[in-house]
Amino acid sequence: MTKAFYAQSGGVTSVINSSAAGVIEVCLENNKINELLIGKYGINGLFNEDYYSTKDLNYSHVKQLMNTPSSAFGSCRRKLNSEEELNFIFKIFKRENIRYFFYNGGNDSMDTCYKINEYAVKNNYDLKVIGIPKTVDNDLYGTDHTPGFGSAAKYLAVSMFEGILDVKSMHKDSTKVFILETMGRHAGWLTASTSLIQNKKIGPDILLLPEIYFCEEKFLSLVQNIILKNDYCSIAVSEGIKYNSGKYVSDLGYKDNFGNKQLGNVGNTLADLIYNKLNIKVHTAIPDYLQRSGRHIASKVDVLEAYEIGKNAVELALKEETGYMITIKRLSSKPYNISLDKIPLNEVANKTKYLHKEYIDEENLNIKNSFIEYASPLINGEIYPEYHNGIPDYLLL
Amino acid sequence: MTKAFYAQSGGVTSVINSSAAGVIEVCLENNKINELLIGKYGINGLFNEDYYSTKDLNYSHVKQLMNTPSSAFGSCRRKLNSEEELNFIFKIFKRENIRYFFYNGGNDSMDTCYKINEYAVKNNYDLKVIGIPKTVDNDLYGTDHTPGFGSAAKYLAVSMFEGILDVKSMHKDSTKVFILETMGRHAGWLTASTSLIQNKKIGPDILLLPEIYFCEEKFLSLVQNIILKNDYCSIAVSEGIKYNSGKYVSDLGYKDNFGNKQLGNVGNTLADLIYNKLNIKVHTAIPDYLQRSGRHIASKVDVLEAYEIGKNAVELALKEETGYMITIKRLSSKPYNISLDKIPLNEVANKTKYLHKEYIDEENLNIKNSFIEYASPLINGEIYPEYHNGIPDYLLL
Repeated sequence: MTKAFYAQSGGVTSVINSSAAGVIEVCLENNKINELLIGKYGINGLFNEDYYSTKDLNYSHVKQLMNTPSSAFGSCRRKLNSEEELNFIFKIFKRENIRYFFYNGGNDSMDTCYKINEYAVKNNYDLKVIGIPKTVDNDLYGTDHTPGFGSAAKYLAVSMFEGILDVKSMHKDSTKVFILETMGRHAGWLTASTSLIQNKKIGPDILLLPEIYFCEEKFLSLVQNIILKNDYCSIAVSEGIKYNSGKYVSDLGYKDNFGNKQLGNVGNTLADLIYNKLNIKVHTAIPDYLQRSGRHIASKVDVLEAYEIGKNAVELALKEETGYMITIKRLSSKPYNISLDKIPLNEVANKTKYLHKEYIDEENLNIKNSFIEYASPLINGEIYPEYHNGIPDYLLL
Repeated sequence: MTKAFYAQSGGVTSVINSSAAGVIEVCLENNKINELLIGKYGINGLFNEDYYSTKDLNYSHVKQLMNTPSSAFGSCRRKLNSEEELNFIFKIFKRENIRYFFYNGGNDSMDTCYKINEYAVKNNYDLKVIGIPKTVDNDLYGTDHTPGFGSAAKYLAVSMFEGILDVKSMHKDSTKVFILETMGRHAGWLTASTSLIQNKKIGPDILLLPEIYFCEEKFLSLVQNIILKNDYCSIAVSEGIKYNSGKYVSDLGYKDNFGNKQLGNVGNTLADLIYNKLNIKVHTAIPDYLQRSGRHIASKVDVLEAYEIGKNAVELALKEETGYMITIKRLSSKPYNISLDKIPLNEVANKTKYLHKEYIDEENLNIKNSFIEYASPLINGEIYPEYHNGIPDYLLL
């Protein structure tokens, strides 16, 4: 009775369950793996011996997982820090005869995979370990892009389009500036993706990327020039922008009524700045979780790639490979064509892939066309969930 | 050569252009109205004599308008305050031989309609004036609901669902509370609509409506109880909630570095409160404009009703009726069935329809099932825009 273990880890995405669907499907179909245990709340599922099992899941679950955002099995932010934890995990592995370990996550999760694989090798325990990439931030090393990014990018591009249409129609005697705050604390991929509406020629006008230090003077002067030219202005800002002092722009520098330091959100900080310095009315949207769980506006390319990557991970392990994360290799952008590849876990764990310098137009606080060529195929196609009484039929386990 | 005038006013919606499509279609088809002038930026289009014309619009525009959010012709917040303004407007009406006036807006816009109709009657100018309702806030008097509400409600219900799935999967060792801030400064219809996912039995747990004074103690105790029971908690809050002193909860009560009073957003104010008092991590989403321009997730019922109401407005005027706003009369909820009706403008202008008391469960800071029965049919059905390269094909004039 050979078992496999799969779990989801880190911040969720709209398509991580698509990868789960791929994993489950191959596990149900092959005859080397007799049962797949799916950890509840990531690796905690192992520590708590709390699992879902393929014995309880069928193809209709697989289909519904393809349409369900967030982590259907629960996620976690737990890192492996001690030998005791690894000893405990392998005690479970041995008892349950778990011989395959699939972990679906980002940088930190690949570190978990790496440590588990190293431990298995060192202790001569026959285990195949494959990391399945996932993060809306697109900051994973060694892959053209990450599953989850395309859908969050699409959510943000469409939201920016709709937000601009709003401020465009209101600007004559009301709000003149629209700010959209995006995730991506360290890397500007999501902020940049709001520019995927560029061929509509209505914005966004300014991108504030975490890769570029925030200069108040330059920013306000640019806003002023854009208002002079177009009478309204649209801005995308990463939650993680900093002054060159290293201080977060969202650090408001004052305390609240309880004496606690206020860490505001950067979108509202910028709105206050523009209102106070330029006397211009601003609206700010902060989608927060909605951008990474917005399955209703997912990218079809992203959903299907996530699924294929889930399948590929199990297939690779069944070929006796171990110690890798699945990667996406771009063969061409026009037409968009990829193949799946792999990278050793130690080459990807704990690293961050920043938005490439050659994509950034630092002078104009914007991005270059090469980014559009890169990211545009990733938001392509629609793949809607089914609805019942106006609400999506997401899987609730 | 008889002309009609149409314009859009006030905060935009996802479906106001559907009403425009209905107006334009009937104007193109009948032979009493030879030309429809569409004001740019609302009533300002009259003052500036700046119009679009049905001479430049065709049926393909009409079709694309049905799929385009926000105000395709521009909106405004201008109120008519003086006799001079009315004199000027009627000078234009006479010169252009404008005999039909259609104004698409909310409370303030119906006041504009009313004043124009009164002036016409008083001065014996033959003019048919019909108001076309619109507002995401659903606070217009005399109609079962307003076009625009259903789509914003659907956006918020789906967003709440997706946000809850996110916090549900993260809560074991990370964020435990998700807050969604909604529009509806004075009336709680939009905040309440996040409950349209109630049959999924995962939330929202607390609704903070502008109709109910905010009590910090009661709120924190409820959050604590819900966390004790479920280990995570979801909250929808109207941007306009107040303490019983009349002070906005979003009034932070301190000044920023520039000495200006900080009017924060209420979502973050509550997040700080929970974090500081209960030491629980919170995520807050503030869709702002996105909820009222999110055509990509519009309600089919709403889109089609807005269109029929636009048509009905022109048809009514062609029957020599004047001085009315079109209303929706509900015939039954199960099955959902409505008819269009009308109400004299003076009965609706400048009034606010608050969330009905009988819908509110004040004890539990939630709503009763009667609200679900009322609002559920309004978010029903999907009607997607076409996409090109992953981006909706919205009409840009």
